[in-house]
Amino acid sequence: AVEQSSEAAEQVEGTVEALLTEPFGVMAPDTTVAGALDRLVHTEPVTGITYIYVVDGGERLQGVVAMRDLLLGRPGQTLAEIMTPEPYALRPDTPLTEAIQAALVHRHRLYPVTDDDQRLVGLVYGWQLFETMATELSAQSGTMVGVDREERLATPVMTAFRMRHPWLQVNLLTAFTAAFVVGLFEDTIARIVALAVFLPVLAGQSGNTGCQALAITLRGFTLGELAEFPVARLLRKEILLGAMNGFFVGLVAAAAMWLYASMTDTGQPLLLALTILIAMVGACIGSGVFGVMVPLTLRRFGADPAMASSIFLTTFTDILGMGLMLALATALVM
Amino acid sequence: AVEQSSEAAEQVEGTVEALLTEPFGVMAPDTTVAGALDRLVHTEPVTGITYIYVVDGGERLQGVVAMRDLLLGRPGQTLAEIMTPEPYALRPDTPLTEAIQAALVHRHRLYPVTDDDQRLVGLVYGWQLFETMATELSAQSGTMVGVDREERLATPVMTAFRMRHPWLQVNLLTAFTAAFVVGLFEDTIARIVALAVFLPVLAGQSGNTGCQALAITLRGFTLGELAEFPVARLLRKEILLGAMNGFFVGLVAAAAMWLYASMTDTGQPLLLALTILIAMVGACIGSGVFGVMVPLTLRRFGADPAMASSIFLTTFTDILGMGLMLALATALVM
Repeated sequence: AVEQSSEAAEQVEGTVEALLTEPFGVMAPDTTVAGALDRLVHTEPVTGITYIYVVDGGERLQGVVAMRDLLLGRPGQTLAEIMTPEPYALRPDTPLTEAIQAALVHRHRLYPVTDDDQRLVGLVYGWQLFETMATELSAQSGTMVGVDREERLATPVMTAFRMRHPWLQVNLLTAFTAAFVVGLFEDTIARIVALAVFLPVLAGQSGNTGCQALAITLRGFTLGELAEFPVARLLRKEILLGAMNGFFVGLVAAAAMWLYASMTDTGQPLLLALTILIAMVGACIGSGVFGVMVPLTLRRFGADPAMASSIFLTTFTDILGMGLMLALATALVM
Repeated sequence: AVEQSSEAAEQVEGTVEALLTEPFGVMAPDTTVAGALDRLVHTEPVTGITYIYVVDGGERLQGVVAMRDLLLGRPGQTLAEIMTPEPYALRPDTPLTEAIQAALVHRHRLYPVTDDDQRLVGLVYGWQLFETMATELSAQSGTMVGVDREERLATPVMTAFRMRHPWLQVNLLTAFTAAFVVGLFEDTIARIVALAVFLPVLAGQSGNTGCQALAITLRGFTLGELAEFPVARLLRKEILLGAMNGFFVGLVAAAAMWLYASMTDTGQPLLLALTILIAMVGACIGSGVFGVMVPLTLRRFGADPAMASSIFLTTFTDILGMGLMLALATALVM
């Protein structure tokens, strides 16, 4: 299923439909245990059959008979008598995340898939659900930086180029926005070059802090935790974390700025150090908020919450981190 | 198993041992089909038994009997006669990645686990293998930026702070290295402030290009593709991709620099544009190499290949991208 064309994957990606296998081991409700045994021995390839699906004249799924039910039944009993009625069944449009979670609860080897009229339309193996999920999950770190879900080690160079390059151009455009903000403070930088030296520090810290919040939020989506965890509580947590992380990282960065400014005879080393501290706290709080909001916003617009999320996030954190430092320096020191 | 303490997880993380369930459905080889049936009905809770594990006096696993084998056997036959001998078994020290791949091939519901003497020491469900893998995989994007594998949405703020903060301090230290490199070119920046504006552009592009290569390499580890794919070929591919991506992104960035320099009356706009183009190609080639080498190096030292990989990677790409641009500008323009 994973090897299917990218377009088809786009359409069915995420639902049980993509994994359907033709039903097998299907029998009528009035089949006797002896008759079922006879059919198992003679007409079906016995290997691989774990369940008998009991289906009425209208192809509606009535129940499931496990091999041990057959084993414990008397030869004259009908399947209708020994079956488990109304078995757990998936729908073709069940999202894969939901199907996986159900599979973790029910732990069957094979699941029946029925339509709205209870008609048995196919079967899905538990391992197929998990395999698809594993392949999807292993794509996430790539998706965050604009790598296509279909790309693998063996993908030809030109194909990889076509898939990765557009997002790098998007990243460039967003970087220009951050550069534009830096450009607004050209006069400040020309007078206090130490600030240019601290630009990558601010950008790097707020970017990494934001990526931590982003990763935890995406994991919450993946493991289905976000359904029960209020967004407001998540935001409060990341704001608090951002404030604490920004403060302690900011103290070290402020000390470094004070040292650097003193050594290079830049004026106002203490005010510059204070600038770095405040900018770091503000940037890290904002990064926590962006880390939560970027995937939520992507999801709201119907997109994969991981899609290029790191590119969007660092745009915001770059602008916030560097902009805050330069604006504060301009206000406090100039 | 996932909820266990972080320390225990450290020790058994990654092998089948962490998931062992007590063996059940164990019988002697001379048990008859009728006897097995009787035991199934009377002494064991029948629900959940899918296989009978046939074990000799020395607790050594001789074979497996599926319910359908029992169904098709005659009452007087012994389990030894109808069992599948030498069944596929896992070892307690089988790495989870290997166990998962085996599970995708064998597709059983339950796997026997034996020690070096063939003794049955436990059972592992297929879904347990996949659940653990899914939880591990969903942690990867976080691991790359220094989020602990144990952290979830519901992790208390102070615990999350203790787990995330040390990596942010590491990130700060590495950012100082990049800042130090930028500081070497203070005179150049003081004379051509346009370069400061392009610092985040270079850092952002080479960082994202490197993260793309990093993500594909980590995915290769996860899906077991790296075992068959020569590292030299992967490096060649990423170098070529880096050159192409760097060239086309560099052209746009060079045009932007030419425009910016012309508009702000910075001297030598064409030479500055050429500087950006060359720096972008060089930085993107280097980023591709780092993206492959960082996880390989972490693995070589026995660490998780994803561990803080993005923090290490961006240190290198920041230094390379910004350093190359400033060095070239100093050589060509000053």
